[in-house]
Amino acid sequence: MCWPVRQILARVGDKWSVLIVMALRNGPRRFNEIKRAIGTISQRMLTLTLKGMERDGLVRRTVIPSKPPRVDYELTELGHSLREPVEQLGLWAIEHEARIAKAQEAFDGKEGSAR
Amino acid sequence: MCWPVRQILARVGDKWSVLIVMALRNGPRRFNEIKRAIGTISQRMLTLTLKGMERDGLVRRTVIPSKPPRVDYELTELGHSLREPVEQLGLWAIEHEARIAKAQEAFDGKEGSAR
Repeated sequence: MCWPVRQILARVGDKWSVLIVMALRNGPRRFNEIKRAIGTISQRMLTLTLKGMERDGLVRRTVIPSKPPRVDYELTELGHSLREPVEQLGLWAIEHEARIAKAQEAFDGKEGSAR
Repeated sequence: MCWPVRQILARVGDKWSVLIVMALRNGPRRFNEIKRAIGTISQRMLTLTLKGMERDGLVRRTVIPSKPPRVDYELTELGHSLREPVEQLGLWAIEHEARIAKAQEAFDGKEGSAR
């Protein structure tokens, strides 16, 4: 796997980027709206990840000169093109949720008895 | 996005899991072989991620009683089913590599001139 692709895969395969793409798939949202939609992300991590995605051309940051000024984040065309593989990942997660839960239970049971 | 799916998406969308699936897609490998294939992952992160993937039923860990004993990691049937969406992500990365590099250059240029 060549280095640039590995780097991009590490970005787009990054769980926060995946969750941000899902959170922005239906249109622009503000910082706190994205944070609430994901729930488990810190202020710092969301700031860093949004900046990285902006740098990669996946997210557009727009300052709206209202009083007080408003900042919207939205997927660019490139960002929207990432939705398809990310949604495939989401569908996979939904389809296999039960099997993963069962595997976790079995693993925890084995680990518990090994202690 | 309901909580369990978000949790699984955070796992399978986790960059290290994505890179491990890619590293194991052609068959079992030893710990250090996986580490070399990914390159940028720490010993601790690889250990944690492999354990998490084993718990989720995505990876099977096999101890081979040779002298010295050998430990192989391979994708389970569930893990192999994750290859398709992960490879879609990889193809997306390859297809858009140039556009992302261009966006990064423009962003860095803008940030540089803003300082």
